[in-house]
Amino acid sequence: MRKLNIAIIGLGNIGSYLFKYLNDNRKILTEKNNCVPLVRYVSAKNKSKKRKIKIKKKQWLKNYLDSTKISEIDLIVELIGGAEGPAKKLVFEALKNKKHVVTANKALIAKYGDKLSRIAEKNKVNLEFEASVCGGVPIIRSLKEGLIANRISKIYGIFNGTSNYILSTMDKKNKNFNEVLNDAKDLGYAESNPSADLNGDDVASKLKILSSLCFNSFLNNNIYVEGIKNIDKTDINNANKLGYKIKLLGFAESINNKIYQRVHPTLIKKDSYVAGIDGVLNAVIVDGKPVGQSIIQGAGAGAAATTSALVSDISSILRGNIKFPFSLSNKERKKLNFENINDRFFSAYLRFEVEDKSGVLSNITNIFSKNKVSIKRLVQNPHKNKNSSSIIIITHKAKDVYLNKTLKEVDKKNYVKHKSKMIRIDD
Amino acid sequence: MRKLNIAIIGLGNIGSYLFKYLNDNRKILTEKNNCVPLVRYVSAKNKSKKRKIKIKKKQWLKNYLDSTKISEIDLIVELIGGAEGPAKKLVFEALKNKKHVVTANKALIAKYGDKLSRIAEKNKVNLEFEASVCGGVPIIRSLKEGLIANRISKIYGIFNGTSNYILSTMDKKNKNFNEVLNDAKDLGYAESNPSADLNGDDVASKLKILSSLCFNSFLNNNIYVEGIKNIDKTDINNANKLGYKIKLLGFAESINNKIYQRVHPTLIKKDSYVAGIDGVLNAVIVDGKPVGQSIIQGAGAGAAATTSALVSDISSILRGNIKFPFSLSNKERKKLNFENINDRFFSAYLRFEVEDKSGVLSNITNIFSKNKVSIKRLVQNPHKNKNSSSIIIITHKAKDVYLNKTLKEVDKKNYVKHKSKMIRIDD
Repeated sequence: MRKLNIAIIGLGNIGSYLFKYLNDNRKILTEKNNCVPLVRYVSAKNKSKKRKIKIKKKQWLKNYLDSTKISEIDLIVELIGGAEGPAKKLVFEALKNKKHVVTANKALIAKYGDKLSRIAEKNKVNLEFEASVCGGVPIIRSLKEGLIANRISKIYGIFNGTSNYILSTMDKKNKNFNEVLNDAKDLGYAESNPSADLNGDDVASKLKILSSLCFNSFLNNNIYVEGIKNIDKTDINNANKLGYKIKLLGFAESINNKIYQRVHPTLIKKDSYVAGIDGVLNAVIVDGKPVGQSIIQGAGAGAAATTSALVSDISSILRGNIKFPFSLSNKERKKLNFENINDRFFSAYLRFEVEDKSGVLSNITNIFSKNKVSIKRLVQNPHKNKNSSSIIIITHKAKDVYLNKTLKEVDKKNYVKHKSKMIRIDD
Repeated sequence: MRKLNIAIIGLGNIGSYLFKYLNDNRKILTEKNNCVPLVRYVSAKNKSKKRKIKIKKKQWLKNYLDSTKISEIDLIVELIGGAEGPAKKLVFEALKNKKHVVTANKALIAKYGDKLSRIAEKNKVNLEFEASVCGGVPIIRSLKEGLIANRISKIYGIFNGTSNYILSTMDKKNKNFNEVLNDAKDLGYAESNPSADLNGDDVASKLKILSSLCFNSFLNNNIYVEGIKNIDKTDINNANKLGYKIKLLGFAESINNKIYQRVHPTLIKKDSYVAGIDGVLNAVIVDGKPVGQSIIQGAGAGAAATTSALVSDISSILRGNIKFPFSLSNKERKKLNFENINDRFFSAYLRFEVEDKSGVLSNITNIFSKNKVSIKRLVQNPHKNKNSSSIIIITHKAKDVYLNKTLKEVDKKNYVKHKSKMIRIDD
């Protein structure tokens, strides 16, 4: 029976879970893949840290980079994290030395995936990263295999459980952002430093990887990214009254042969599928031809779900399938131009907090009309005893650049009491 | 560059769509799979039928079984259909002659899959049947690859678009079964002979295939099957009032190491994910460890969606992955005992149409109590001017055999005006 010698580098929650899983399930994995997965070596920053797993002394590597040099090692699982530093060094060295690599590192793949993919292809080894996008949701394998027949026009969805948990909890409990964020930290749904989850960067990395796979293109950094820090419960309540939910969504789409990548809070109809995805779940929606619309939903994070994805990658290598990391040879991947969203049309929700005096409304609607943004719906709510009011506008479709110009122009006026808000609508 | 010579046998809607797709997309499929897919031969019952595709004279086989003998043919795509007759002959002969087989034939695989799988394994060729279960939904590949790490405890969902269309349309338009069925036929959502779709057999075939994959077991015929023909709009309306929808669901589940397979109309909570799947969509929900719950949803039928699945199977063969048809070698697949649902506990919805006279209710509740079926909720609605009333009972969990006994016993009484109804509840 063939054997595959594995080194796991990084033994946090995920690495430890994977280590135990591979030892406990060696028999069934061997039967399913006709090859024995053997965890031969491990390495971690803190060797003496208490872990729930039993590591033999001889399994510890002196230096994590030794894994790239030891000839009997076939596969390195990188679970260090981060786009730079040791993770980067490890994965580059591993592929250069003809080791297969499995990684959960979305930041690394989103940044250096093209370079790494060239080395993997040249050296005929696998570079697999199912676990880097949406944890246990097998979206990468589905795009590369189950949905391989399809020309994809759009992929979008909820790619970050932390931000989705926060937005859906703000909605359900009518609480403010910071309050829910603190709860989420206590419950383990948000990291102590959750900035990449909240500012959209985490979704952006995942989306870059997905759109590259969907459009057979190299990775592209032309992406609009906006996080959820400015969403407050007033917006969520307003959205509810108008028949919408607010979700942090990532979109990659081809419209008239123009490709856009964007991550931003989005108003979506209450009765839509995506609006119903609450808590820490991830959901990916793919529009493709010939299949039509497909949806894959599941646990997006956590050691257990991530291990499910890592093991699917490891199994693929056990079966001996050498595949192009991004589905196509680097010779065939395209250098596509991705467009800035400035010229894309959106309808949007805008909220202005203004002094309650005559002339304000007509001034605002004037600015809209001057910028060719037409108004579909307008609601003015006076705030009691405050001499101020809130003006909520839903626009017809207008170019993003004009929506922003309108917002900026209104914000210069003296009658504006707080920075105004814009949230794009998906319909 | 490697080449794979393909014969397509059966040129109905799906075969014709696939033929055109493979010709139009040869370049991208070659690039993605490093092997050229060439449709070399075709065969169909009616050669002179008008088709929208251009078939060269030399592509036609004299006899469909010739495809199993011509040495240059590597892969046969079987699109004849049916568990017996020509489809069976073709697939057995093809595998015996060391041809790869791709098929959309759920009846054939559900009945002869184990035998066919042994021949494929012995001859080291592929037998792939993604298209046989839920059309474009890549559930088989996900179970075999993307979710390979998981020990599955339950798989269930909506596996038949026709019956789902009928039930959801009865609900939305408040129409009766036959009325909606006729509309569905006119719209092409139901075949002229839709019996397998309506009596649960279609779902049963798919479920047998899925449960075999989930539980690493041989195919098993111990399955409870009940269709939707007896559902009428009264039941759908009653369900609505009680907070439920009625769906035809298939379930395969392992409860305390007992495996059950069942297909039946089911009451599910209105706000559940499955309740929201309307029309011709399919949805599969998988509970597994470590991943948790995963959902895959998409187009379950039609030439386009089915082609998406067929091409994923063909691509897998193009890449040269010889795999066990049911994920495991036949030596490793288990002979599991599947249980009859008699001893499984269900809560259920029951409807009795009875004469409106004193003593009836107490007699019915007596029969329940004698059979140890306890009542959770009871609603009695008198029918105006008819001297009869409808008694709706939601039970607590009870053994299926006792639920049925109760029903039968009540049905013997003179006061019962129509055969009583039982629909199981999933919670």
